Amino acid sequence: MPLLTSDARGVYVIAVTPFTDTGEIDWDSLDRVVDFYFDKGADGLTILGMMGEAPKLTQAESRAVAERVIRRAGDRPVVVGVSAPGLAAIGELGKAVMDMGAAGCMVTTPGSLKTDPQIHAYFAQVARTLGGGVPIVLQDFPLTTGVNISDEVLGRIIDDVPEVVMLKHEDWPGLAKITKIRKAEAEGRRRISILCGNGGVFLPEEVARGADGAMTGFGFPEMLTDVVRLASAGDMDRAQDLFDAYLPLVRYEQQPGAGLAVRKYVLAKRGAIASAALRAPGAPLPPETVAEVERLIARQEKRLKELN
Amino acid sequence: MPLLTSDARGVYVIAVTPFTDTGEIDWDSLDRVVDFYFDKGADGLTILGMMGEAPKLTQAESRAVAERVIRRAGDRPVVVGVSAPGLAAIGELGKAVMDMGAAGCMVTTPGSLKTDPQIHAYFAQVARTLGGGVPIVLQDFPLTTGVNISDEVLGRIIDDVPEVVMLKHEDWPGLAKITKIRKAEAEGRRRISILCGNGGVFLPEEVARGADGAMTGFGFPEMLTDVVRLASAGDMDRAQDLFDAYLPLVRYEQQPGAGLAVRKYVLAKRGAIASAALRAPGAPLPPETVAEVERLIARQEKRLKELN
Amino acid sequence: MPLLTSDARGVYVIAVTPFTDTGEIDWDSLDRVVDFYFDKGADGLTILGMMGEAPKLTQAESRAVAERVIRRAGDRPVVVGVSAPGLAAIGELGKAVMDMGAAGCMVTTPGSLKTDPQIHAYFAQVARTLGGGVPIVLQDFPLTTGVNISDEVLGRIIDDVPEVVMLKHEDWPGLAKITKIRKAEAEGRRRISILCGNGGVFLPEEVARGADGAMTGFGFPEMLTDVVRLASAGDMDRAQDLFDAYLPLVRYEQQPGAGLAVRKYVLAKRGAIASAALRAPGAPLPPETVAEVERLIARQEKRLKELN
Amino acid sequence: MPLLTSDARGVYVIAVTPFTDTGEIDWDSLDRVVDFYFDKGADGLTILGMMGEAPKLTQAESRAVAERVIRRAGDRPVVVGVSAPGLAAIGELGKAVMDMGAAGCMVTTPGSLKTDPQIHAYFAQVARTLGGGVPIVLQDFPLTTGVNISDEVLGRIIDDVPEVVMLKHEDWPGLAKITKIRKAEAEGRRRISILCGNGGVFLPEEVARGADGAMTGFGFPEMLTDVVRLASAGDMDRAQDLFDAYLPLVRYEQQPGAGLAVRKYVLAKRGAIASAALRAPGAPLPPETVAEVERLIARQEKRLKELN
Repeated sequence: MPLLTSDARGVYVIAVTPFTDTGEIDWDSLDRVVDFYFDKGADGLTILGMMGEAPKLTQAESRAVAERVIRRAGDRPVVVGVSAPGLAAIGELGKAVMDMGAAGCMVTTPGSLKTDPQIHAYFAQVARTLGGGVPIVLQDFPLTTGVNISDEVLGRIIDDVPEVVMLKHEDWPGLAKITKIRKAEAEGRRRISILCGNGGVFLPEEVARGADGAMTGFGFPEMLTDVVRLASAGDMDRAQDLFDAYLPLVRYEQQPGAGLAVRKYVLAKRGAIASAALRAPGAPLPPETVAEVERLIARQEKRLKELN
Repeated sequence: MPLLTSDARGVYVIAVTPFTDTGEIDWDSLDRVVDFYFDKGADGLTILGMMGEAPKLTQAESRAVAERVIRRAGDRPVVVGVSAPGLAAIGELGKAVMDMGAAGCMVTTPGSLKTDPQIHAYFAQVARTLGGGVPIVLQDFPLTTGVNISDEVLGRIIDDVPEVVMLKHEDWPGLAKITKIRKAEAEGRRRISILCGNGGVFLPEEVARGADGAMTGFGFPEMLTDVVRLASAGDMDRAQDLFDAYLPLVRYEQQPGAGLAVRKYVLAKRGAIASAALRAPGAPLPPETVAEVERLIARQEKRLKELN
Repeated sequence: MPLLTSDARGVYVIAVTPFTDTGEIDWDSLDRVVDFYFDKGADGLTILGMMGEAPKLTQAESRAVAERVIRRAGDRPVVVGVSAPGLAAIGELGKAVMDMGAAGCMVTTPGSLKTDPQIHAYFAQVARTLGGGVPIVLQDFPLTTGVNISDEVLGRIIDDVPEVVMLKHEDWPGLAKITKIRKAEAEGRRRISILCGNGGVFLPEEVARGADGAMTGFGFPEMLTDVVRLASAGDMDRAQDLFDAYLPLVRYEQQPGAGLAVRKYVLAKRGAIASAALRAPGAPLPPETVAEVERLIARQEKRLKELN
Repeated sequence: MPLLTSDARGVYVIAVTPFTDTGEIDWDSLDRVVDFYFDKGADGLTILGMMGEAPKLTQAESRAVAERVIRRAGDRPVVVGVSAPGLAAIGELGKAVMDMGAAGCMVTTPGSLKTDPQIHAYFAQVARTLGGGVPIVLQDFPLTTGVNISDEVLGRIIDDVPEVVMLKHEDWPGLAKITKIRKAEAEGRRRISILCGNGGVFLPEEVARGADGAMTGFGFPEMLTDVVRLASAGDMDRAQDLFDAYLPLVRYEQQPGAGLAVRKYVLAKRGAIASAALRAPGAPLPPETVAEVERLIARQEKRLKELN
């Protein structure tokens, strides 16, 4: 299985973990949703992230999910989230999934990091813990982690930790950060791949500024792949037209905490998974929300037809 | 001047504070932008909020701005932000602006509040400090304040602090909170006015769930007033069509920290203020951002024409 | 093995995890330090806490450490820290250690808890996850967790979650909280055991206010057991004399982050463990610190002699 | 009035602001406590800090307090805390107090600073705002501000902002930081004065590592001045003997939030101020606390007699 490199491009969908209504992992749906993502144009998958309900999985389940998805994905790359409060757990899961054929490991900043030198030292430690040669995706997500990574410290990490091959970019606002990274590369710094998160809510602008694509989720992942494809090809108007048609729902799915239930509702409605259930302690969608989502989907379909 | 009540409805625009390119308050532009907001349909204004660059004003300037805006607004209500780390400063500014004819004072939670009983006690203290009869707008904005206000503690504040007549609702996600407040009112709790913030990014859904309007800013405030008017009248489809046309720019202006410069750029371009300058330490818009904003405005105009 | 109850009293020492200089778990030293703690008068032990370097252990190591300590402790109670970002991991480790004969599980608040209702719901979920009948020690440590637990929500947890039998009290300042809990019990609320943390830096006052003892660590654990014994017997002057003699070093060990290396240095010097090494990424004590610790120990010995 | 320089040494006591029982500023007590501090050996005073209840003062009161203390202090230096959420307020109060004859301005980090470059830029902005030549005391107090200042960024501030002449050092743990600053100076970096806070709880070690004294408060400020004098003269044993005698009360006063009421109780008991009252919303000491404080003072007196 090829490893992730700093030339990676396209869309790596953050995969949901399907559960039955009683909270068991739904293995059939897991296969089905993997196929669904690739059918919609995904270049790779990212599993065991925050939107994959990773903290609700036991360690044994995490490994089983990783193994199943990696096998199903075949020769297409699978990145595995291995963030944990301690390095030992990161090393344990990271080594296990790399042995299974993962393309790389995604790691974010624990909330205990307080200063730039600590952030810098942390990724060096993570790289040593995972072992040389394991590609690392640095997830930069201050809204959730509480840790802000300045352009400056990010540059030092790129300089000093060659294992960091990709930035999962979800600082917000973050457009200026993409521009600065690409400028520094033009002046000689090592290139890294930049895939954007945040549900794709700035995707057209991000690609125009030099991002290589998206690493995020959405109930209609074909939006992500179509927009990245069109924008990368320079067809910004068509990319933005498509994007705008989906934006009301993108926005709606971007509600922290509440968004995952919406995403699973959409995926279940589309047949990609059998049940929209979150594992406890997640609650089902209240009827007001269902009505709002249905209305947004109906309007979206109408608008997409107008565009064709 | 009439005081704010729990029946307040419509759009209270969060007003910018215009500066000259050298950082002085631009009094002519301040008059002009007040007129602009009312021309576009505003029911009231809110000044000295975060997006009004209040922390960059001296105390003398804050009072002068309040006095000027209140006079210019005439018989239309002006809410004044008086949040401060200490109660003394809140009382000092609050009493001054009420004497000038403000309709009420907006107060948010200082970051020092750690528990629900502390949040509850705080608003009782604020009410005592401002003096009985001064209407309070409770700004619920955890993304910026770091303080989360549960439905439960909000209910207790409504029960115990009659001076709190309005919720500036910008919890995110917050749709469920609106529904819960309105349900509790249906079961007997005192009604409060709910005006929504967050740049209006969920405005159609918020009004549909029972919000009374918006208290936020946007470079095209006519979107806020039109959507609230249409949605309040039950014309949800037309409201959402309009909203969707503006959404790409709404989203763009919603970038924390970066958004105010965009908003002032738009207001200056439209002639509502003379200069887009932020007072130091704010930076001017980089050229990439200008290009993105111009492109979004051009697309917005095109889409609005299609809708007519 | 008897389970922890709300009548638990005395000193449960937070045990260190000994490592060799090359970072392997030192099993002989683990046995030795367990014996050392009980020789110094400990009533029980608490393992896999923050000061036990739990986040640096793999899951397999965590279980092996728990098994070894529980076996060595024989019929004396061992509480196991099972805090984790997700409920699944809590349930997985918690069930495993209860099967090994642990007396109970210690759980603290994840940083994601934002409001009192969320804190309350969390401990109900933890109790359900661990299964009825598993005694829970609620660790109340806002300095590290960032989550403040008001007296009010603590009372509601005591009312609604009978599995919570003990408070590991390390709110700071927290003396008033002990008084309030005991007052509420006098008025009819269910009693819980209160053992105090924070290195024992307020131990005499805490016991005088109704705490049942200590659950914390210190290089000289005999101070903890002697002070609790004397203070519980009402000999406050002798308790405080002893306490004061150790206080300069207690204070020194209380430095967040830096204190554990000091504690291990003292334990190694006293022969309780073979090496003072922290597992990576912990650094060895710098020479200035060693000199300060040695000086404090020499002064402490002199002062203790004066008292005898 | 001479300005603060990087050679400043000794003890600058953080002064309380005395109130009457009904919450008015007690001007006579203010004079009296100023005299009291200097009688006990203070080299200077620091006013309008967190322990001076600055956020409870109106702007007019803040200025009046500063004027009164500066006049009373005569030719002895007075540092004034001017921290505020915005630069405008910092500049406004800072310029006013420098005109009154203050020796310098103390500024801490607002919680909005997220990265090292932002912290660095902030102090440059503060220096520009206050105007060249106004000496700045950088208060490094992460426990309260939530902002951690790494050695590295502190070094860059020292390099680039010559107005920063003093560090009010209350990082915790912070002994290593003092050692690093002094090492960097030995290798050529500009010297700054380091006065330590945190109630003096590490004062002997801090002076031994190169701190120039203390900037903090305590009900018995003679402890601070005696310990700094003895330790600076190299008489570490006598310094530590004295320190240890006061340590149980130092520790007790160090309770965040609760400590100020204890300090004012002690000062009122000693006749330095007329009333121990905090301005609202501060509560009076509960009887349990009074009993604990009285007991600690009685033991302290006994121990001090033994030492003489």
